[in-house]
Amino acid sequence: MIRLSVLYPVTEGATFDHDYYASSHVPLAVKAWGLEGADIDKGVNGPYVAAVHFTFDSMEAMGAALGAPGTAEVMADVPNYTTIQPVMQTSEIVA
Amino acid sequence: MIRLSVLYPVTEGATFDHDYYASSHVPLAVKAWGLEGADIDKGVNGPYVAAVHFTFDSMEAMGAALGAPGTAEVMADVPNYTTIQPVMQTSEIVA
Repeated sequence: MIRLSVLYPVTEGATFDHDYYASSHVPLAVKAWGLEGADIDKGVNGPYVAAVHFTFDSMEAMGAALGAPGTAEVMADVPNYTTIQPVMQTSEIVA
Repeated sequence: MIRLSVLYPVTEGATFDHDYYASSHVPLAVKAWGLEGADIDKGVNGPYVAAVHFTFDSMEAMGAALGAPGTAEVMADVPNYTTIQPVMQTSEIVA
């Protein structure tokens, strides 16, 4: 199993609409990529103001999902909740 | 619910023993803090070589766990698998 974490660094002068992110943006991504859900984080302490963790069966499945036509719509929606450039982390889920 | 993510940045010249981490260190932390388990990541792409995500019922529960005597043993075990200084992120789990 593969975890794709999208991490939004705390950024001077930038805003992040947590409500829109959880109620609209992440559901859009979940639908576009055919997932059952995602884990959403609202930062309390640390370098990130928000994050989301998606789980895929394999690197191939992740590649296929991100290559789907719906991804363009997901990316075009980002300016609706933040100007922060996210950090992407792909990991193998060990346990 | 609170997620405590411990993220190990890719660091020039540093090593990380993923086997020891998953089989010994994280179980030690899980036991010390009275948790049911944790999610362990082995980095594939991105800024982190490894990560772990612990879940607590509340900030108070997290504080109580980290303040328990067993935490000293957990911290003393870190040099057994890496010299990397981890990044700590505490987040509220939104969904």
